[in-house]
Amino acid sequence: MSRIITLTTDFGTADGFVGAMKGVILSICPDARIVDITHDIPPQDVLSGALTLEAAAPHFPPNTIHVAVIDPGVGSDRAPLYVETRKHFFIGPDNGLFDLVSAGRFVRAMKLTTPAFFSASPSATFHGRDIFAPAAAHLAGGAEVEHLAEPVSTLVRLDFPQPERKGYDLEAHVIHVDRFGNLITDLRRFEYDDWNRENAPVELVLAGRRIEGVKQTYADVPDGDIVAYFGSSNRLEIAIRNNSALALFQWTLATARGQAVLLKKA
Amino acid sequence: MSRIITLTTDFGTADGFVGAMKGVILSICPDARIVDITHDIPPQDVLSGALTLEAAAPHFPPNTIHVAVIDPGVGSDRAPLYVETRKHFFIGPDNGLFDLVSAGRFVRAMKLTTPAFFSASPSATFHGRDIFAPAAAHLAGGAEVEHLAEPVSTLVRLDFPQPERKGYDLEAHVIHVDRFGNLITDLRRFEYDDWNRENAPVELVLAGRRIEGVKQTYADVPDGDIVAYFGSSNRLEIAIRNNSALALFQWTLATARGQAVLLKKA
Amino acid sequence: MSRIITLTTDFGTADGFVGAMKGVILSICPDARIVDITHDIPPQDVLSGALTLEAAAPHFPPNTIHVAVIDPGVGSDRAPLYVETRKHFFIGPDNGLFDLVSAGRFVRAMKLTTPAFFSASPSATFHGRDIFAPAAAHLAGGAEVEHLAEPVSTLVRLDFPQPERKGYDLEAHVIHVDRFGNLITDLRRFEYDDWNRENAPVELVLAGRRIEGVKQTYADVPDGDIVAYFGSSNRLEIAIRNNSALALFQWTLATARGQAVLLKKA
Repeated sequence: MSRIITLTTDFGTADGFVGAMKGVILSICPDARIVDITHDIPPQDVLSGALTLEAAAPHFPPNTIHVAVIDPGVGSDRAPLYVETRKHFFIGPDNGLFDLVSAGRFVRAMKLTTPAFFSASPSATFHGRDIFAPAAAHLAGGAEVEHLAEPVSTLVRLDFPQPERKGYDLEAHVIHVDRFGNLITDLRRFEYDDWNRENAPVELVLAGRRIEGVKQTYADVPDGDIVAYFGSSNRLEIAIRNNSALALFQWTLATARGQAVLLKKA
Repeated sequence: MSRIITLTTDFGTADGFVGAMKGVILSICPDARIVDITHDIPPQDVLSGALTLEAAAPHFPPNTIHVAVIDPGVGSDRAPLYVETRKHFFIGPDNGLFDLVSAGRFVRAMKLTTPAFFSASPSATFHGRDIFAPAAAHLAGGAEVEHLAEPVSTLVRLDFPQPERKGYDLEAHVIHVDRFGNLITDLRRFEYDDWNRENAPVELVLAGRRIEGVKQTYADVPDGDIVAYFGSSNRLEIAIRNNSALALFQWTLATARGQAVLLKKA
Repeated sequence: MSRIITLTTDFGTADGFVGAMKGVILSICPDARIVDITHDIPPQDVLSGALTLEAAAPHFPPNTIHVAVIDPGVGSDRAPLYVETRKHFFIGPDNGLFDLVSAGRFVRAMKLTTPAFFSASPSATFHGRDIFAPAAAHLAGGAEVEHLAEPVSTLVRLDFPQPERKGYDLEAHVIHVDRFGNLITDLRRFEYDDWNRENAPVELVLAGRRIEGVKQTYADVPDGDIVAYFGSSNRLEIAIRNNSALALFQWTLATARGQAVLLKKA
């Protein structure tokens, strides 16, 4: 079975960037199976890229190679990275992009150092095409990573909010907005369960607006109502059933991020 | 030859939703060939999804499995559906999405009921990943649908306008706007031919604007002129040659929909 | 190894156009490997399509078939074209789309003339589905081009600006804006080197704004600063590090195009 290489970038698809990466991969490893995860991460938004990888990458078969390029530091001294978890391989810049999907746990991490596995004379502005795509294709073709890279012991961590206990209450924070205008928070189900072991009724407050309880799904409230629930990535989300919570609060992704959601036991 | 699975959703590509579905499919059926039809259906717009399937799906080889997820009722009691036509298989929510592409004719229809073919503990908000993708992958891998589903006899129908005779005239309605700002109507060529058997010269009126005759293509009028013709899906369309009819009328998709096009014989 | 067919269009992905092309290809040549380069070329923007092909197509393996459909003249008498270079094959309308990627040099060019290789009764509005996709699929399946087409000796050329010497100075022009708001010019590295053989320090002026020197990459200036460099396609680009030059100048793609960049030796 040929190796799967997934692509996650902020390149958009209007230019030739993604096509160039695909061409490079297929030229080096003609039977690689390229799967697009997304190319529509907002430009330079490493956190969005990390959340997308967290949502999508774990569902792929073992030994999948995930290439991710959201790379505000291209051309600087940030390292080109290889991260190996128990199930998968990740290739991209060392800027926290793989922090969520690996939960900080990896079998080994290496800095890509071998020019023989890069394109001849790599550009200073497009490492996706000239370093990350060729390295992934060589790996898919059977190259040993020992020959590609040298070990590193610490990775750049992603800087983003964590839920906080505030006395008896719990404060979560909006960290992402999805396609439907749903607000995704930093609060994961296990953290909520840990705070609310007694499964008490809960009230939420977001931007002065009260939300009754944590439901199972949108369909637990009437069309147009606001609802809180644990979404498909096991994070607390706030949504309007069949409408956009982002539009209701008149926010953008930038102004939504960091908004506090206070959870109180009744 | 490995089985083709197409994907048609309103998930956009900025989040990890589509990537998660692809990973699930490849984990269950590693040699499935996944083909994106689109992920840019406007959120919850079942009619747009149905029209896209009508335009694209029939061109695929026999035995293609088409997965479509535009699913405003996710988490409610709407059924997860399997529809088999003489040529293809369709999997998605029972909300009218397959109504146009199947023309209401199917060999059999079944409600997906077998948890063994879903993901373990399916979420209440993401059946694309947890029910539709796994069911399609099991089918592609050779599972018998009899083991996946139980027969249903009636499907939810799509609610959308039909052309109407108004005395000697014929009234069509805008139902869709394509990427180029062309206005697509509910009038199909065979219905037009039936109304105008004598092939009389025709005049059209849309929003107070007169359009002379039904042409073969854009190129039959000068650049910037308005033109009516039967498009590539055999529906009457109104376009501006090399410009946007939507912009000319200062409409949005929402305000364009339902606009009447009156056809008169001269 | 199955043949690669790439797709480059201005069809967007919200409609069924691209899906229909993929279905047609797979119905004729079931083991073709379809690779999306982009479907987000601005509508009817042949120059953007030509630049995207120039950036992406050369990286694909030998014998790749590139189908490109940005086709404002569909339905007119513009020819459906086959162009063969030393490495690749190109299929699309004869409107200059392949002018940059082939650098005007081709092994042979032919007009597609054999209805047997088109869809039965091709539409007048969608040659992507009815002419270009089937022709590519027949080629991928082993059909001899001699049977598809008849030779042509001249191709339509792309009309776009060229850098100009102005006394001692050199005037470049913005021809494209990428996803990140970077401004791409018509000046290629070898033309710059030819003008500045002595490698003198250089100052650039764009819209009254001075830019110091030609750098290697964004990271050579602080965040938010303007920078000129030769980009990944070896064209001079003007960017703001980790921000949008397009936004800085308050331009659109249309108003950015043609803006002069004056290069002076210090």
